Amino acid sequence: MNVNGRPMRTIWLAEDGRTVEIIDQRLLPHQLAVGRLRTLAEAAAAIRDMAVRGAPLIGATAAYGVALAAAGDPSDEGIARAVEALAATRPTAVNLRWALDTMRQALLPLPPRRRREAALARAGEIAEEDVAINRAIGEHGLPLIADAWRRKAGGPVEILTHCNAGWLATVDWGTALAPIYRAHDEDIPVHVWVDETRPRNQGASLTAWELLQHGVPHTVIADNAGGYLMRQGRVDLCITGTDRTARNGDVANKIGTYLKALAAGDNGVPFYVALPSPTIDWAIDDGGRIPIEQRDPREVTHIAGWSEAGERVEVRLVPDGSPAANFAFDVTPARLVTGLITERGVCAASREGLLGLFPERRDRGAA
Amino acid sequence: MNVNGRPMRTIWLAEDGRTVEIIDQRLLPHQLAVGRLRTLAEAAAAIRDMAVRGAPLIGATAAYGVALAAAGDPSDEGIARAVEALAATRPTAVNLRWALDTMRQALLPLPPRRRREAALARAGEIAEEDVAINRAIGEHGLPLIADAWRRKAGGPVEILTHCNAGWLATVDWGTALAPIYRAHDEDIPVHVWVDETRPRNQGASLTAWELLQHGVPHTVIADNAGGYLMRQGRVDLCITGTDRTARNGDVANKIGTYLKALAAGDNGVPFYVALPSPTIDWAIDDGGRIPIEQRDPREVTHIAGWSEAGERVEVRLVPDGSPAANFAFDVTPARLVTGLITERGVCAASREGLLGLFPERRDRGAA
Repeated sequence: MNVNGRPMRTIWLAEDGRTVEIIDQRLLPHQLAVGRLRTLAEAAAAIRDMAVRGAPLIGATAAYGVALAAAGDPSDEGIARAVEALAATRPTAVNLRWALDTMRQALLPLPPRRRREAALARAGEIAEEDVAINRAIGEHGLPLIADAWRRKAGGPVEILTHCNAGWLATVDWGTALAPIYRAHDEDIPVHVWVDETRPRNQGASLTAWELLQHGVPHTVIADNAGGYLMRQGRVDLCITGTDRTARNGDVANKIGTYLKALAAGDNGVPFYVALPSPTIDWAIDDGGRIPIEQRDPREVTHIAGWSEAGERVEVRLVPDGSPAANFAFDVTPARLVTGLITERGVCAASREGLLGLFPERRDRGAA
Repeated sequence: MNVNGRPMRTIWLAEDGRTVEIIDQRLLPHQLAVGRLRTLAEAAAAIRDMAVRGAPLIGATAAYGVALAAAGDPSDEGIARAVEALAATRPTAVNLRWALDTMRQALLPLPPRRRREAALARAGEIAEEDVAINRAIGEHGLPLIADAWRRKAGGPVEILTHCNAGWLATVDWGTALAPIYRAHDEDIPVHVWVDETRPRNQGASLTAWELLQHGVPHTVIADNAGGYLMRQGRVDLCITGTDRTARNGDVANKIGTYLKALAAGDNGVPFYVALPSPTIDWAIDDGGRIPIEQRDPREVTHIAGWSEAGERVEVRLVPDGSPAANFAFDVTPARLVTGLITERGVCAASREGLLGLFPERRDRGAA
């Protein structure tokens, strides 16, 4: 998507053909910094320290990390060490393991001297596949926005989103934001209500920045405001991403998603979840079995922002002595989800809906 | 309630008998500062700039504001000007207008030379009435917590609250927190989940500070987390305050309250709203007619906290160029409210429920 009027991605092979460049997302929205990954260790650190984040982007970065390792030590042991080091960076991310398995399977059959070049090529393919998946999510989600526009008497289609499921979470396009970018590029007027998404504020910092750069009208709101807006009839549809989708259509996503889905249901607002199929966990029957990460309470008690002088400053919000808890995700039950937008089309948030789009999964497990 | 082990109120007549002192709540939780109100303008500014906040405390402060005005200009025009200036400070709180009406009715029949003294006396009575009302709310709410404790196998009663409806929002005791303080003082084990309450963070700063000072166990959470906790069975009941209650039991309260009420309803968690009867607006039939204040977007785009060095620092959270919106309240429909806790007892959130406790209101309007 565009940054300062020019198309940009989150990760790319540098001009030297040997190193990898990334947007260092820790400095957004206040500074656009490009970081360079030269080694396995630098790639692992970029994932672990969240210079890159978002399940699809983590996968692509890990793939490039294997390629950087193969340039130094292309032996079987070298590849195994790289996969192990990268797998340990964010052990819960499903795409990470998928990308590492793909790289290992592509490299191990080759003689070591051919692995460096093959690894760079395969990592590039993984990145391109992600772009293609997200572009397809955008295509399939576009009619939902176009239909909402046709139904409206006037004014833009009002869309609420939570957290960041935009191109910064992927290689390009994003998941939840892909249909919005497509609609905007088709000159369908859209306006996005951006939940700030406490405690890490990915909405206020990343989603707002993305939309601003690409020229999509938007307004940042407190997470508390979505219910009010829906009661006022000021939201036409909701689109969020998901970190993991169960077989029955339950979706785990950033904490607070469930509350917005409840409000959507209470007000007859369609609630869509956009996802690339690698985030479907076919091994679990329902969302009750998705483990919920509990993160550092300091993310609740403190917050970082930018001072008038342009310096990053962390401040305390909670009285010293008051404990805090930091649950990172919640599970929205399928009954509250109007539809799932995937790279193969839109389906009901149900076992049958998912199997309709992914019939090859019908074989697995009991019918 | 206690501060550093000693009882304190939010507003009181200063020792000079002519000026009024308040806790300047803008510096909490990091600093306990006492401010002095000498004039109508200072009283109006204290309300508008939220040095004092919370519907009952706003009412008491406005009453003292009229008294400060009457000391300077006790004429009919002077009183009218004071009432007008104070009424314009905050649009949603109904206590404000109730307190101003009460003051006007007490003063206008008197000769101007007697108004100054009478105004101070009546303002003092309004403050004491607020304390008595809140103490009674605590008494009537106590059995709800005691019953929840008896039903539990073990562990404390888990109570979720939103915003600050504690003693800092009133003259003393608070509304939503009054039953919690009473339960704690009765040695019933309680634990409070404190919503941080973006964008002004009254939960993280004021409610947490109150509970910490009085020794009530609590944990601060992001506003997004309440739905997750209820799905996990980790909330036994919710108690919030309200800024205005309609005749039919609809309640306007801090933005986000509606989302928590939806989650409570979806999970069978009782959702109570505590209110002093002056916050009931008998003139409006339902909550759809309650005006919702829209505040400065800067409260969303920026946040103030305390640096490591103990200095108050404001930082920017949202990219420069991204607009924000700041809706201050939402309306929770009566169907989502288990009961209203008033100074006369607990009733259903309905027209009949309210009229059962306040039969003198049956005369007004059509049956």
